[in-house]
Amino acid sequence: MAVYKTPLRDMRFVLDEVFKATEFWQSVPALNEVDRDTVDAILEESAKLNENVIFPLNRSGDEEGAQFNNGVVTTPAGFKEAFRQFGEGGWIGLGADPRWGGAGMPKTVTALTDEILFSANPSFALYPLLGIGAALSMSQHATDEINDLYLPKIYSGEWAGTMCLTEPHAGTDLGIIKTKAVPEADGSYSITGTKIFITGGEHDLAENIIHLVLAKLPDAPAGSKGISLFLVPKFHVKADGSLGERNQVGAGNIEHKMGIKASATCVMNFDGAKGYLIGRINEGLAAMFVMMNYERLSMGIQGLGASEVAYQSAAAYARDRLQGRSATGVKSPEKPADSLLVHPDIRRMLLKTRAHNEAARCFVMYTAKYLDLSKYAEGEVAAAAADRVALLTPVVKAFLSDKGFEGCVDAQQVFGGHGFIREWGMEQLVRDVRIAQIYEGANGIQANDLMGRKVVKNKAAFVKTYVAEMREAAARLNAPETARLKTGFVAAIDRLEALTQRVIELSASNGDEINAAAVDYLHVFGFTSYAYMWALMAEAAVGKKDDSFYADKLALADYFAVRVLPEMEGRARMVEAGATSLMSFSEAYF
Amino acid sequence: MAVYKTPLRDMRFVLDEVFKATEFWQSVPALNEVDRDTVDAILEESAKLNENVIFPLNRSGDEEGAQFNNGVVTTPAGFKEAFRQFGEGGWIGLGADPRWGGAGMPKTVTALTDEILFSANPSFALYPLLGIGAALSMSQHATDEINDLYLPKIYSGEWAGTMCLTEPHAGTDLGIIKTKAVPEADGSYSITGTKIFITGGEHDLAENIIHLVLAKLPDAPAGSKGISLFLVPKFHVKADGSLGERNQVGAGNIEHKMGIKASATCVMNFDGAKGYLIGRINEGLAAMFVMMNYERLSMGIQGLGASEVAYQSAAAYARDRLQGRSATGVKSPEKPADSLLVHPDIRRMLLKTRAHNEAARCFVMYTAKYLDLSKYAEGEVAAAAADRVALLTPVVKAFLSDKGFEGCVDAQQVFGGHGFIREWGMEQLVRDVRIAQIYEGANGIQANDLMGRKVVKNKAAFVKTYVAEMREAAARLNAPETARLKTGFVAAIDRLEALTQRVIELSASNGDEINAAAVDYLHVFGFTSYAYMWALMAEAAVGKKDDSFYADKLALADYFAVRVLPEMEGRARMVEAGATSLMSFSEAYF
Repeated sequence: MAVYKTPLRDMRFVLDEVFKATEFWQSVPALNEVDRDTVDAILEESAKLNENVIFPLNRSGDEEGAQFNNGVVTTPAGFKEAFRQFGEGGWIGLGADPRWGGAGMPKTVTALTDEILFSANPSFALYPLLGIGAALSMSQHATDEINDLYLPKIYSGEWAGTMCLTEPHAGTDLGIIKTKAVPEADGSYSITGTKIFITGGEHDLAENIIHLVLAKLPDAPAGSKGISLFLVPKFHVKADGSLGERNQVGAGNIEHKMGIKASATCVMNFDGAKGYLIGRINEGLAAMFVMMNYERLSMGIQGLGASEVAYQSAAAYARDRLQGRSATGVKSPEKPADSLLVHPDIRRMLLKTRAHNEAARCFVMYTAKYLDLSKYAEGEVAAAAADRVALLTPVVKAFLSDKGFEGCVDAQQVFGGHGFIREWGMEQLVRDVRIAQIYEGANGIQANDLMGRKVVKNKAAFVKTYVAEMREAAARLNAPETARLKTGFVAAIDRLEALTQRVIELSASNGDEINAAAVDYLHVFGFTSYAYMWALMAEAAVGKKDDSFYADKLALADYFAVRVLPEMEGRARMVEAGATSLMSFSEAYF
Repeated sequence: MAVYKTPLRDMRFVLDEVFKATEFWQSVPALNEVDRDTVDAILEESAKLNENVIFPLNRSGDEEGAQFNNGVVTTPAGFKEAFRQFGEGGWIGLGADPRWGGAGMPKTVTALTDEILFSANPSFALYPLLGIGAALSMSQHATDEINDLYLPKIYSGEWAGTMCLTEPHAGTDLGIIKTKAVPEADGSYSITGTKIFITGGEHDLAENIIHLVLAKLPDAPAGSKGISLFLVPKFHVKADGSLGERNQVGAGNIEHKMGIKASATCVMNFDGAKGYLIGRINEGLAAMFVMMNYERLSMGIQGLGASEVAYQSAAAYARDRLQGRSATGVKSPEKPADSLLVHPDIRRMLLKTRAHNEAARCFVMYTAKYLDLSKYAEGEVAAAAADRVALLTPVVKAFLSDKGFEGCVDAQQVFGGHGFIREWGMEQLVRDVRIAQIYEGANGIQANDLMGRKVVKNKAAFVKTYVAEMREAAARLNAPETARLKTGFVAAIDRLEALTQRVIELSASNGDEINAAAVDYLHVFGFTSYAYMWALMAEAAVGKKDDSFYADKLALADYFAVRVLPEMEGRARMVEAGATSLMSFSEAYF
């Protein structure tokens, strides 16, 4: 069975020793009431709830799945009670504005509780997360009247939320959606169309479900500039917040999927459903984008959360499982065989996953810090932070989910044949985490966003400040234990900088160069960022000798440098190869 | 839905133009009656049967799964009839000795029909393949009496076969198995013990199931030198071949797995079952090894077979799916969007998979040629061929299954959200092919076998002849179209040679260096071998201009060199990093 214990010490290390969270929060006026002791209590409570209530529902939820019957979706046993507890405990509103019942915690806190939640149960996690995303989008674009009516109910878990974008023929390319919104005399809109892949589109966890729906007005311009955003409640909401009649929206079916089976992925039919415009006409994509950026960070965290459970489970298995003997002499003569941990290749898989996970956690926290600055700081600081977030969000989403998948596959491999058997839970991790690479913008789309909009379009303006900051960090790495890390890190920065320049030059004469380089470039960017995170962690660990914790951190940083980071070189050479070799084949060839 | 059309032209290209099969068969006296026209008819019949009968059962077989009920295993609808057709068509005996009803076809033919079968339906494929493996082991180690009685029935599909190795506590490390074999007065043995992960241990496809079982005699030496091999039929077999009573062996359950759900993976209980010794006492592992080597090649072919379907399906989807516009200008102005094929990153995934697949097919055929020589040639030629087979078998098994998995994951990614939905069939490919990396010796074990027994132990004797041959092939690559391939190929050979030397040196003083290098070294070896195969294919294509087929081959060879092969460099650097960084952590750290 999969095992999970919240990595609280590693979380505190990142929070306090790497990012000096208390100082950070105190430096931002809007956050200076965030109290370190309260945060610690939050982390411990989150660990308790997730380990004891939500994690145990992960296996059974997979076996049982969400069930669809005549328009009604039933979640697996235990989900309803857990969702109630989750809402009542204030977890949905943890990062929300107190005016709507939220606890106002910054992303530098909620990113950690999100990780715990995704480790515990990714199917369950999606129900509250979609509501949080919808609420975030509403809070920035809906009227006060709507927000005051809806948001407290969403943050308490009484109501849930969704985002309805994809249609059967239109996923990545939302410009070609067909769902129509016709203005009604009362100022509302009549929404008609079919949406697919709607996470939590229908379920039994909440009294009401608030759908945010992209649709086109009859006279809307073609393409993505003609899309508006609408709020469509499952049940009409009266002015006092009580529920009225059922709206003309419902689930036509749920999808049968590879994983996250306890999460209901619905086909939603809108048959003249009453909807309310959110934000301005034809600016729906921008309004939805708030939510999508938020979700994208979460999908990276999903990769980390799964990979953390995968690591812990595989490490526990490797410790217990006796198989073969050490090549350097028997280690457990009293037993019929040594543990799997005597075999270097088992360690290779475990350490790679752990090195990825710890860098991922640090990278999420790093990005969260800039998210907090972009939201809570002011002026130039906030603007610069927003640029950094724009640059890093696609990397967090894609690189963490790619490496999270890899970690789950490697951990499954440690289990040998048992890894393929359902009851051990490892294959579920692989099936569940796979979606993180696909949804909320497939990883190829994230890479294209990075390479095109975030790098080439601004002529590497965002990259330059990031590179400059990394060079400073590398310059500070002067302990003998960090020598190999420094070498690898500096080489990575050099490589990233040169490749950035190269793609900008190539793409000036050939638009295809951006997408041809995108995924491999994103991986170069991701590896360089992980090296940066290991530099920050190593810096925080050097010279501390309380127990083996810090020495182990430095050893893993070194391991990352010599046995994980080198993968980057292949990706770099692929970027250098350019687009020509891809585009020379005719379409008929494929 | 997944689509599959047997790649007959590519198969013929490899057979005739790359390996000049007819000349090859004629050069070996025992094979000089193999007729090219007959082989072509075999390939076409295989394509027909697999595309029309066996492939259509793949999706339904996954949904239905093998069912266990009170000791009885039922296969999905259609399997029984298909298995009957498969047996009656002579496909089980295609490579078998004519004295037992086989068609005597060489591996250079059956490797291709195996690929077709694994593309069509990996769950189904395992039922005949296990029988073929068991029969092969028997044909070399059992008495004529037993073989004459059993083998014709296995090759006709009337009976099936299994290999029973793994026990709950012992998979990779068979030295610690507990199953007992007690000699009986009549010369037979009473077998008692529990075996797990037994593919086809029980099912409804055949009248009888012949189990080959590893067990220990009461006075057997400890470890792997005390293991003997026994034949245990499900039903006793009378001297005339008719069936007697049920033997004391049966399935206790079947496993619920990630994939290959239509293949019954059984827990087998032997309760004093009557068994017959195969080969000599305490030499069971060697007798079983024949079968395992055979299976290992098949598991590599399984990776290729899945990845071929994945490629074809994703290419078809990419052609049809309209999404976004080309970065170099609209390509289909009459449609609402261009096809996915205008996007370089989609091509990147498709071409990588295709470049892997074509190299894999060529590598399988290359290895099959040496398997044929080792079996059908004589003297030094046969001995040298056996060495080459020993060297390449772990690479074929592990590298092809690793790259096959990667190909399925990439193809799934091309489908976006639809790739995660069961009805599209892509997620099944991923779930099914995953097992090929795990069973028949997990890929880490294959790598250890390569690095230890096949490379270090003989001081690179096997590698040296292989490298010398590759250098000759590289020297022949002198067309301008192959310039980049030549550069990459030569660099890869240099790298492989240097790394081989380095691991031999390092491991002289530290036994852990072998396993620490193993997986990354196997990948370096695999990439270099694929570069070799692309060199052979390019050589066969240069100067031929009948249609775009040959120009496309050269373009894909070039693509492989500049955008696939560079991955090798990261692996090479990881090998260079050595074992120290892995072994410095205490067991408690994990």
